[in-house]
Amino acid sequence: MSEHRRRRSSSRLPDETEIPPYITRTAPTYDILTEEQIVAIEEAAEDILEGVGVEVRHAPSLNLLREAGCRVEGERVRFDRGFCRKLITENAPSEFVQHARNPAKSVRIGGNSMVLVPIYGPPFVAATDIQRRYGTLEDFNNFVRLAHMTPVLHHTGGPICEPTDVPVPKRHLDMNYGHLALSDKCFMGAVTSKERAEDTLQMCEIVFGKEFVDSNCVLSAIINLNSPLVLDETMLDAAHVYAAAGQACVITPFMIAGASSPTTIAGLSAQSLAETLAGLAILQLVRRGAPVMYGFMMMGMSMRSGSPIRYDETWKSLLIAGQLARRLGIPFRCGGSSTNSKVLDAQAGWEGSLYMMFSMLAGVNFMIHATGTLEQGLVGNFDKFIIDCDMLGAASRMMSGVDTSPAALAVSAIAEVGPAGNFLTSPHTMDRYRTAFYSPTNANGESFEQWAAGGSLDAAQRATRRRLELLAEYQQPALDAAIDEALIDFMNRRRAVLPDSFA
Amino acid sequence: MSEHRRRRSSSRLPDETEIPPYITRTAPTYDILTEEQIVAIEEAAEDILEGVGVEVRHAPSLNLLREAGCRVEGERVRFDRGFCRKLITENAPSEFVQHARNPAKSVRIGGNSMVLVPIYGPPFVAATDIQRRYGTLEDFNNFVRLAHMTPVLHHTGGPICEPTDVPVPKRHLDMNYGHLALSDKCFMGAVTSKERAEDTLQMCEIVFGKEFVDSNCVLSAIINLNSPLVLDETMLDAAHVYAAAGQACVITPFMIAGASSPTTIAGLSAQSLAETLAGLAILQLVRRGAPVMYGFMMMGMSMRSGSPIRYDETWKSLLIAGQLARRLGIPFRCGGSSTNSKVLDAQAGWEGSLYMMFSMLAGVNFMIHATGTLEQGLVGNFDKFIIDCDMLGAASRMMSGVDTSPAALAVSAIAEVGPAGNFLTSPHTMDRYRTAFYSPTNANGESFEQWAAGGSLDAAQRATRRRLELLAEYQQPALDAAIDEALIDFMNRRRAVLPDSFA
Repeated sequence: MSEHRRRRSSSRLPDETEIPPYITRTAPTYDILTEEQIVAIEEAAEDILEGVGVEVRHAPSLNLLREAGCRVEGERVRFDRGFCRKLITENAPSEFVQHARNPAKSVRIGGNSMVLVPIYGPPFVAATDIQRRYGTLEDFNNFVRLAHMTPVLHHTGGPICEPTDVPVPKRHLDMNYGHLALSDKCFMGAVTSKERAEDTLQMCEIVFGKEFVDSNCVLSAIINLNSPLVLDETMLDAAHVYAAAGQACVITPFMIAGASSPTTIAGLSAQSLAETLAGLAILQLVRRGAPVMYGFMMMGMSMRSGSPIRYDETWKSLLIAGQLARRLGIPFRCGGSSTNSKVLDAQAGWEGSLYMMFSMLAGVNFMIHATGTLEQGLVGNFDKFIIDCDMLGAASRMMSGVDTSPAALAVSAIAEVGPAGNFLTSPHTMDRYRTAFYSPTNANGESFEQWAAGGSLDAAQRATRRRLELLAEYQQPALDAAIDEALIDFMNRRRAVLPDSFA
Repeated sequence: MSEHRRRRSSSRLPDETEIPPYITRTAPTYDILTEEQIVAIEEAAEDILEGVGVEVRHAPSLNLLREAGCRVEGERVRFDRGFCRKLITENAPSEFVQHARNPAKSVRIGGNSMVLVPIYGPPFVAATDIQRRYGTLEDFNNFVRLAHMTPVLHHTGGPICEPTDVPVPKRHLDMNYGHLALSDKCFMGAVTSKERAEDTLQMCEIVFGKEFVDSNCVLSAIINLNSPLVLDETMLDAAHVYAAAGQACVITPFMIAGASSPTTIAGLSAQSLAETLAGLAILQLVRRGAPVMYGFMMMGMSMRSGSPIRYDETWKSLLIAGQLARRLGIPFRCGGSSTNSKVLDAQAGWEGSLYMMFSMLAGVNFMIHATGTLEQGLVGNFDKFIIDCDMLGAASRMMSGVDTSPAALAVSAIAEVGPAGNFLTSPHTMDRYRTAFYSPTNANGESFEQWAAGGSLDAAQRATRRRLELLAEYQQPALDAAIDEALIDFMNRRRAVLPDSFA
């Protein structure tokens, strides 16, 4: 029995050699707006760029915009209709490759590809066996190990949790090292200052070689805008570093309906498009052809209770953002398995899964917050990370198309089995049963009696068990000793000059 | 504070006068197959009907088919290509109204309407405060009361749970009475024998009047087929009763991939279409113009573990079934918030919500198992019923379209607020905040601190509390005393002649 169990359990782990480094979506996107509606939003965005403009709190960007002929008054910049769109469509790549240090794990971003990336930035961590508390470097490293191990994620992301036990000015060094040493998948760079972005680039140069980094994308970075209509200095500083180096920037306005944007989805989409166009245009002025992504992030706000909500209109807004990004011809980033829930309950399941699924149906190319998020991203939950991987595995397979070949139509198999027959032993079934359906890694499909005999574990408890198994099985991917030493040396040199502030 | 709380809590209950009796979907369906692919499935179904045929274990149906010119050999019936489709498209209504005893609650079934119906047929019930056990008539009645009260459901369904404390031959009487007396919404008729279907019709005649029932649809009934390719006597007996009386029948093959059908989605869809076409054609021979629905129900089966699975390919199959039904031009029925989970955990949340959402995106007109199901329908869970209502409320609003009028595009509001401004006090926001987003009835959107101060209740615990409140607030809708008496008299007469068997 235990031998049988063990075999079944290990057979559930997909063979890593078969695993593609990213998903190729062959199912169609779900386009909720008509051509006429989407054009109305695009025109409204041009109205905003032309008439209202954006506030750019960054002298180097203002200089570039002035040189390009934009109307700059103080920090307010107004754009001629179509200026930003033209700059972007003529220069930004529609797809690009982000290289991993293991070339087999490099990801294509854009087109029909889908890259799944874990939670980003939670200060807190929790799990069935970990009471909610601030995250540490050890938590961060464990998240990287898990993201490295799961075939469902294609990227280890950025700050999967904040390592709050490391001083803020030095944190990026430890996080970069965790991503580079504990995994060989792609990761995201620090954006909290110019210097931290530069440190990140230099650490990549140590691992990939300077020449390779100069001519290839090895980093992606999230550049959030301060909606409404403000592009701030910190973010643009970091964005300039990455764009100038040909690294990928995701421009993401942070839309809170009724606070930083209108409550209406059409208005919110227009404002978000205007802000993103402005941000993307600046990056193309920094370096034409720099890889960029159209980022979208929004939450509703219940004006009755003040609580953030991600329901009907939020789901629609994801679909609209995907349509807008495809028309602009650049890769699309959105979230993730986000939920308001404080615990890993049915609410966490349904809210997270619907937000995730609408992201996929929106044609997301780069899904941040795919796994592990609770409390709208405040908490990185280790059990949810494991459960979300299972859900994402099923959802990713959903986005493949349907085989309607004569063999799949199975008319002759149906004739052979005939009325009241049984397909269990049909050759048509025998040839296909291993791969016919997604095999869950966390969801339980046993009968009540089997499940009770196995200890009546719920999804979170099973996830805890699986996580501890995975972390025990973890093996660090090989890293050249000289490179490792050079990384450590670089970090030590930087640590010696950086302050120990926790502010 | 407690006064404030009470007001907020009651303000969350939508005003019943504003509630439409069913959803009108204005968002598009998500069509996963191309025209060419869908035609391939339709042609395969015709190949099956022509070459393999179906087994009809019902003499009256065989007679009708023989008279209509079908090739009948024993119980095997083969059809000329297009025969069934022609009979259906020329006769079956594309939309129809099922009348409720309260005319304000009558539902339109078909086209862009969406009618949400609770779980159907679980022998067991459970909840946070109810240990998993066989259902009783009191449980059944409580489910009817809840279905009556929630604005999210448009129908009280059929056996929301099996009242196992009532003898099988008499159970339908109590269930019909529960639906008719405890609610004034639409409901579903008994299908487990000819006599029980006739009793159901007669009870409706008491409530609606014989003349009204003769010329209107007041009942819907699920007619399951025995896949592969068998139509059995019990089901066809009941179907004949309802179809002859002009009541609505849902023809639903029961597809278990790899057991009662091929594992391939294309083959399974073709077989299901063939079976449904045969069943629907028989009903149109019983009475041309009888209201019918295209039913679809499938689960995958993990051939590794034997467990039922409803993931990637199952979701695709729902979308395909919806496309097939629309091309046939009749209303479409599929499920529901189904899950394999044994408890109300994150698995129950994510599995249930994705199955539900793909049903909606498939263009479901009549969603059975919308609320309350656990263990693939074996358990009616009261807490899940409440949680699913919340999720369905959000999902139903998702299926409305997007307003892209100039007012919604909000360019002038965005100009007024300007960069770094705040929309909280904008007139554009003030005019809309009450209805801008779905307001959750179970999901918690508080901060961790607020939530902890409120007792750290998870979704299931909040649902229990809400259910007890609802049942305490329940008021029976008025029913004419003479009608009530006549119903009771009818039941007593029937009970006197029916056996007390529990088999």
